[in-house]
Amino acid sequence: MLEAFFNPRGVAVVGASRDRTKVGGSILANLIEGGFSGGIYPVNPSAQEIMGRKSYADVMSVPDPVDMAVVVVKAGLVPQVIDDCARKKISGAVVISAGFKEAGPDGYRLEKEIVKMGMEKGLRVWGPNCLGLINTFTKLNASFAHVMPLQGNIAFLSQSGALCTAILDWSITEGIGFSKFASLGNKSDIDEVDLLEALENDEDTKVIAGYLESINDGQKFLKVAARVTRKKPVVLIKAGRSAAGAKAASSHTGSLAGADSAYSAAFKQSGVIRAEALEELFDYAMAFARQPLPQGRNVAVLTNAGGPGIMATDACQANALNLPTFNEATLQKLKAGLPPTANIYNPVDVIGDALVDRYELALDALLSDSFVDGLIVLLTPQAMTQAKETAEAIARLSKGKGAGKPVLASFMGGEKVAPGIKILKEKKVPNYLSPERAAGSFAALARQTERLKRTEGNIPVLNVGKAKAGEIINRVMKESRVNLLSWESREVVSSYGFKVPAGKLVTDAESAVSVARETGFPVVMKIVSPEILHKTEVGGVRLKLMSDQEVRDAFELMMYRVGKRVPNAHINGVTVEAMTSAGREVILGMSKDPQFGHVFMFGLGGIYVEVLKDVSFRVSPFTEQDCKEMVQEIRAYPLLSGVRGQTPADIPGIIDGLMRLQQLCFDFPQIVELDINPLMVNEMGQGTLAVDARITLEKPREG
Amino acid sequence: MLEAFFNPRGVAVVGASRDRTKVGGSILANLIEGGFSGGIYPVNPSAQEIMGRKSYADVMSVPDPVDMAVVVVKAGLVPQVIDDCARKKISGAVVISAGFKEAGPDGYRLEKEIVKMGMEKGLRVWGPNCLGLINTFTKLNASFAHVMPLQGNIAFLSQSGALCTAILDWSITEGIGFSKFASLGNKSDIDEVDLLEALENDEDTKVIAGYLESINDGQKFLKVAARVTRKKPVVLIKAGRSAAGAKAASSHTGSLAGADSAYSAAFKQSGVIRAEALEELFDYAMAFARQPLPQGRNVAVLTNAGGPGIMATDACQANALNLPTFNEATLQKLKAGLPPTANIYNPVDVIGDALVDRYELALDALLSDSFVDGLIVLLTPQAMTQAKETAEAIARLSKGKGAGKPVLASFMGGEKVAPGIKILKEKKVPNYLSPERAAGSFAALARQTERLKRTEGNIPVLNVGKAKAGEIINRVMKESRVNLLSWESREVVSSYGFKVPAGKLVTDAESAVSVARETGFPVVMKIVSPEILHKTEVGGVRLKLMSDQEVRDAFELMMYRVGKRVPNAHINGVTVEAMTSAGREVILGMSKDPQFGHVFMFGLGGIYVEVLKDVSFRVSPFTEQDCKEMVQEIRAYPLLSGVRGQTPADIPGIIDGLMRLQQLCFDFPQIVELDINPLMVNEMGQGTLAVDARITLEKPREG
Repeated sequence: MLEAFFNPRGVAVVGASRDRTKVGGSILANLIEGGFSGGIYPVNPSAQEIMGRKSYADVMSVPDPVDMAVVVVKAGLVPQVIDDCARKKISGAVVISAGFKEAGPDGYRLEKEIVKMGMEKGLRVWGPNCLGLINTFTKLNASFAHVMPLQGNIAFLSQSGALCTAILDWSITEGIGFSKFASLGNKSDIDEVDLLEALENDEDTKVIAGYLESINDGQKFLKVAARVTRKKPVVLIKAGRSAAGAKAASSHTGSLAGADSAYSAAFKQSGVIRAEALEELFDYAMAFARQPLPQGRNVAVLTNAGGPGIMATDACQANALNLPTFNEATLQKLKAGLPPTANIYNPVDVIGDALVDRYELALDALLSDSFVDGLIVLLTPQAMTQAKETAEAIARLSKGKGAGKPVLASFMGGEKVAPGIKILKEKKVPNYLSPERAAGSFAALARQTERLKRTEGNIPVLNVGKAKAGEIINRVMKESRVNLLSWESREVVSSYGFKVPAGKLVTDAESAVSVARETGFPVVMKIVSPEILHKTEVGGVRLKLMSDQEVRDAFELMMYRVGKRVPNAHINGVTVEAMTSAGREVILGMSKDPQFGHVFMFGLGGIYVEVLKDVSFRVSPFTEQDCKEMVQEIRAYPLLSGVRGQTPADIPGIIDGLMRLQQLCFDFPQIVELDINPLMVNEMGQGTLAVDARITLEKPREG
Repeated sequence: MLEAFFNPRGVAVVGASRDRTKVGGSILANLIEGGFSGGIYPVNPSAQEIMGRKSYADVMSVPDPVDMAVVVVKAGLVPQVIDDCARKKISGAVVISAGFKEAGPDGYRLEKEIVKMGMEKGLRVWGPNCLGLINTFTKLNASFAHVMPLQGNIAFLSQSGALCTAILDWSITEGIGFSKFASLGNKSDIDEVDLLEALENDEDTKVIAGYLESINDGQKFLKVAARVTRKKPVVLIKAGRSAAGAKAASSHTGSLAGADSAYSAAFKQSGVIRAEALEELFDYAMAFARQPLPQGRNVAVLTNAGGPGIMATDACQANALNLPTFNEATLQKLKAGLPPTANIYNPVDVIGDALVDRYELALDALLSDSFVDGLIVLLTPQAMTQAKETAEAIARLSKGKGAGKPVLASFMGGEKVAPGIKILKEKKVPNYLSPERAAGSFAALARQTERLKRTEGNIPVLNVGKAKAGEIINRVMKESRVNLLSWESREVVSSYGFKVPAGKLVTDAESAVSVARETGFPVVMKIVSPEILHKTEVGGVRLKLMSDQEVRDAFELMMYRVGKRVPNAHINGVTVEAMTSAGREVILGMSKDPQFGHVFMFGLGGIYVEVLKDVSFRVSPFTEQDCKEMVQEIRAYPLLSGVRGQTPADIPGIIDGLMRLQQLCFDFPQIVELDINPLMVNEMGQGTLAVDARITLEKPREG
């Protein structure tokens, strides 16, 4: 995948310059000085030779095979270059040049044009408006970055070129190495999904880290990311999460970002770990690149000072990590080998005057303990502390008998611990400035373990009344309506297997009475009219009707009032339904997101959704397992699972409902909004009842 | 305050050694080499001279005035030294030696002894079991730290000595300076409150930062901290916040830490900013030490790259900072001076090829804008970026026309931005590794501004029936009970001004009927007996009784059932009360904390407290303003203030209730637990009703 870009036989630089301060010169110099062993061909019609290499008038004139062209010419000249590249059978063009989508409508058209040309002529376009790309293992630096990154096992991709330069610069100082480094620019053709696919089986890459402002194709991302995260961890920042940030992001890249909740849901479902900030991104990436995954969340903390041990303990708890009790053998070993003032329980404190031997003894004991999944080792610089030797012991033991258990360090301090930190870096033991960051990173490792253990489940094909629902939806579309009447929505969800309250649509008072007698009192009556969306306001809803007389009165009063208040409304009739008060109220909702398509919401009804915003989201397609997690995710979940001896609600019924709504949206993708509010959930095994439903279709296309 | 410690005329080192690897040698060397200009007197009976200074057999033999002794002898010898110090009229002893409270019961007694001696003889004890203290302005290094910190305006205090060494070491590398550096050790006498008082008017200290595992006297802390934070910001880590962490903390220092919620409440009330992690602590401290406070939360973000600008925008929103729209003059200036591709709206993007001139222009415009309270300036290293010059411009303009508005920087990268970061450090412009940390620090500045603007209010003396309540409480104590009967609790809260449901205690069925007729149906009946705490389980509660007959039946059934199930219970009678269903249910609760005393809780009733844990806390004494904030703090607050056109609840009534309960606890400090559950809150202006109350007194002391 993307072989032409990461492993080209030859690279042409179109717009090469002998001036290194120019982008075309900088890229050529990077290619040459980076040590790339394939062919490097400057293309510039006005030069004979650049930086000691023959310069060609165009790519067709290059006599050797070329797989990739790096294009640095003015935006307007790019189409011609793409055409030339196609003739030369070049399969990848990295368009560095700016002046495309980000520059306005003309640039947008130009960008569309080059992508279209590429597709027609079998050539992939990278960028435009990017910094380029780097492969440290083939020593290919096809970018105008000012440095070549260190070699390592983190692949980094970014939608922001400036962030690339900042991170490259910083990574050298920090000693962080990369396998691939990719500035994606405008993502006109090659995007994050292509990168994920390319890196999925890349042996040099242990973890994929990235910065995104938008995702081009949400559904494709979901599918590919779910597959890739089963092979290796993916950690991403998605910027523009706040409303103001999203506005800044869309004005920056011209990309339309969907709701942040959809991104969060998609990341969760596909096993992508979302980093909230740059430090998190690299904290996690470093842990993944350098340590194995733990079996679980049981952490032993080892320290030479009480205070930092407490801080680590707090941080573990905040990250849902456990500090297990050790097994008897471990306690014996610690007791025998450590001074009496030491703490042999978790967190283990070898005390301020500890030399390397106490750390060694404790490391050995803790790494052998079957209750311990991994270690966080703290060190503070005290009078006798052997930072360097302790670092060496950590590296040796964690790779020896501790192999398979991750060890993260936090050597706290400056100059006195620097020799230790240097060793940790060399030996690939991640070191964090504070215990809090070490704990956060351990939790990220544990999440990946859980991701790998998670069983996805399938999406069953449900037995539903598609034909019936189709009739209703087609009728609505034929009538050029977008909102289904509540009665129609009720029929649609009923045909998809939802139980709905007993009842019927009637057009006269006596029929209302006889329906009420059938369903049993009390009943609810509601007006049905395409012109009336807010029924209550016009006197179109009556609750708790207890007798024939009340039903009769309600019907006639409703006709009178509605007739007076909305004289032009076409009245289909009135629904008479059994009133339900039993069960717990939940809401199942769906709205269509520009990037991800059908995004579903779940929450407890009323106040929980409206005031406490206690809701969870999942992007379709989702499995029953996803639904289960979606239900468990809300804070008020105990109200469903049963608190204080209360019987649990029928959670399988909720999950079944979500799966049925998903099936409905599969079958009728023209549905853009939908909710069942409330869905009354009975006790476990007793099912649910869709009391009210609302369905909206997409606007018919003009013309 | 603490002048003897921070500004002594002379310092004796008791237990001085010529071996620098020993603590007694290290301290003496630090004193001498630190450049302290007062007298330095080694005390060691077995030496004539140490490090070129005459050594004395004991402190009394020192001929010159000595204000402070640093004590490094074995724990068992410390009492003798304290006695000597008192004779010499030394007013402060820093006991470095370990072997006290942290070492077990003998050490605990020894520690008590030296403090008692000190109190009797007019000498304050610092420590024991500490690293010592440093004053960079008098060049006094009375510690065995391996380095002298840089001079600066942050005062740091810590309950962990190891953390002191780690932070000192790190601060040198980072260029962070301190005014005072204090390792508090066991805090046997001098504690965090003494330090706050000492630093309150210290001109060298702009911000007080600290690490605590416990607070000795919660009430005193609350009072002093509230005063000090009106003079300068106080930022603290309180470790041991998780259950596991608290356990580790108490086994580490032998201190009994109270509930973390009490600490959080006390910090909020007293204006202390709680840092969650080490990085936060110093991020905030650096901002406070180096920048003025903003007028408000309106931030202008200035950047040379879109991506980081979006990240800063997200981070501002996450920290409740606003990105305001600029005024017209600013927009004009930016438009005129920046290239057309620049973004002149917030976040302002001067684009990747910006030299220092564009930053200058934008800084000038933004600092003059009346809608802007402060700036976050981002810089990424791009081809032409002038990191150094830009840093100089930021420093110059922020101190010139921008004086009064804080400017925080985030120069992102490594080597390429290092010259800029160096300048920022020199010029005291805080620089953060990431936009997220800059935004977090700006929010801390804004919190201090808000703290200074906050009006405290007084605690009014309420007109309450103290005598009546006293009678009941005295009776309960006389009967050696700790739990008041619900009937008694009801009387107590009623005498303190709470409205309670109409009703009475009766002892026969016909009286029950006549009370029910008076109060009006429906009524609630409950058994009253000191032996019956769980009334419902024994058939001692009946709700919704609608008629004479139901009341009569209920009374006799209750007597029959309770008599059968709890045959030995003494029955006081049965309460008959009007049943209330109107209003919103809240809970007012109080429980006594070992450190802070009476800690009050507020939450919405039932599920909100029990399942969603949606509660807020305040430590008594609190004002009406505190109560108001306490009520507003819960997530479900909109349910009280009114959502969807609902009438607001009587929030002043809730606040009044909290103030009355506080008064009750002032008057009867023997109350250790108390709740009103539920307090029914009517609509605004309609008051509240204490439906049920529960009061528990402290156990009578044995003997």
